[in-house]
Amino acid sequence: MMALKTLRFAVILAGCGNKDGAEIHESVLTLLSIDRAGHQYQCFAPNISQARVLNFLTNEEMPEKRNVLIEAARIARSQIKPLQDFKPEDFDILVLPGGSGVAHNLCTFARDGAKMTVLPEVESSIRAMHQAHKPIGALCIAPVMVAHVLKGVTVTFGRDEKINALFQASGATTINSDARGIVVDEANKIVTTPCYMLDARISEVGEGIDKLIQQLIRMV
Amino acid sequence: MMALKTLRFAVILAGCGNKDGAEIHESVLTLLSIDRAGHQYQCFAPNISQARVLNFLTNEEMPEKRNVLIEAARIARSQIKPLQDFKPEDFDILVLPGGSGVAHNLCTFARDGAKMTVLPEVESSIRAMHQAHKPIGALCIAPVMVAHVLKGVTVTFGRDEKINALFQASGATTINSDARGIVVDEANKIVTTPCYMLDARISEVGEGIDKLIQQLIRMV
Repeated sequence: MMALKTLRFAVILAGCGNKDGAEIHESVLTLLSIDRAGHQYQCFAPNISQARVLNFLTNEEMPEKRNVLIEAARIARSQIKPLQDFKPEDFDILVLPGGSGVAHNLCTFARDGAKMTVLPEVESSIRAMHQAHKPIGALCIAPVMVAHVLKGVTVTFGRDEKINALFQASGATTINSDARGIVVDEANKIVTTPCYMLDARISEVGEGIDKLIQQLIRMV
Repeated sequence: MMALKTLRFAVILAGCGNKDGAEIHESVLTLLSIDRAGHQYQCFAPNISQARVLNFLTNEEMPEKRNVLIEAARIARSQIKPLQDFKPEDFDILVLPGGSGVAHNLCTFARDGAKMTVLPEVESSIRAMHQAHKPIGALCIAPVMVAHVLKGVTVTFGRDEKINALFQASGATTINSDARGIVVDEANKIVTTPCYMLDARISEVGEGIDKLIQQLIRMV
């Protein structure tokens, strides 16, 4: 059923920039898609230090510290709240954009692989929305957090067979998709799209995100 | 005439974030609109220190230095070149997204108002494209640079009457517009849209940018 009321989306960002934070295109196109559909969003990010700061020209670590919430505020034009203030009862849908910051700041997947842990406030956000039967969308690498927290779900990692194998081993079902497609787990109300897990063009990423947002709205 | 060939857009970024760099939404939606239209883009930024680094939560200056090119690379997913390498003969269209970084890093408008100067490599890029009769698009506050370098052009600053008066005094024509609209100077092949000069929604900004990109394509 297409919802007729204005829906409230919570969007959790992992910083600002695909190599050490939130993937910027994925984050912005998520906000665009929500707003174009006539719904509302609130961005959140954890108030923690980034695991690392990269020079995006050289790919080398820079000798400085940045805060995930402060940097994510760049994408959100300062309209952002600390994730600890997230109240699942205030939102209808949760969306998790990707970027390496997801695997470094929001969970330890980049370092620990299958032995990863998820930041407690991210884990509790995913779990609370799922328990309330509210839809969750995850982009790019963010499905690793959803598949880790909620065992037995169906997600996509693009065509990354190594990550597929890791999460199949812990009970997830993985379905390959290109950037223009989405994978829908109807029972668990989870929608995923691979975005820049693949060598995609921005318009393809935008198409996948538009489909994901539309599907999440239908599931409310 | 609608161009049938693949057009090459140069996009000059002023950093990463609306308060001290390039406005992120405007920059990303520019790239999206170009790619959706089937054309190509190359991002550029000057290899200089930012005039300032702001904390996007408190609006206070942070005691650190950031480089405009390295930070802009976050928006460009590292696919960016130093502006000194820009060759006007390699491009059909120039686009200048906005953000406070334009007024702080690419020119001195924020500090000097009508007595502003434009970074030489930005000024020469604008001048070279104009002399070659190639279209130039400018978003948000970026039209201040175009109106300063090319006297007598027609641009929009949204509904900012103070900035309108400043540039009318130096020979520009200003036309008010909302974020969903564009202002077209056919003779000079200049297209402008106010984006976040106004209190706009991201979907309105996206609509204005889509119209601007389509108009620039028609002018080639």
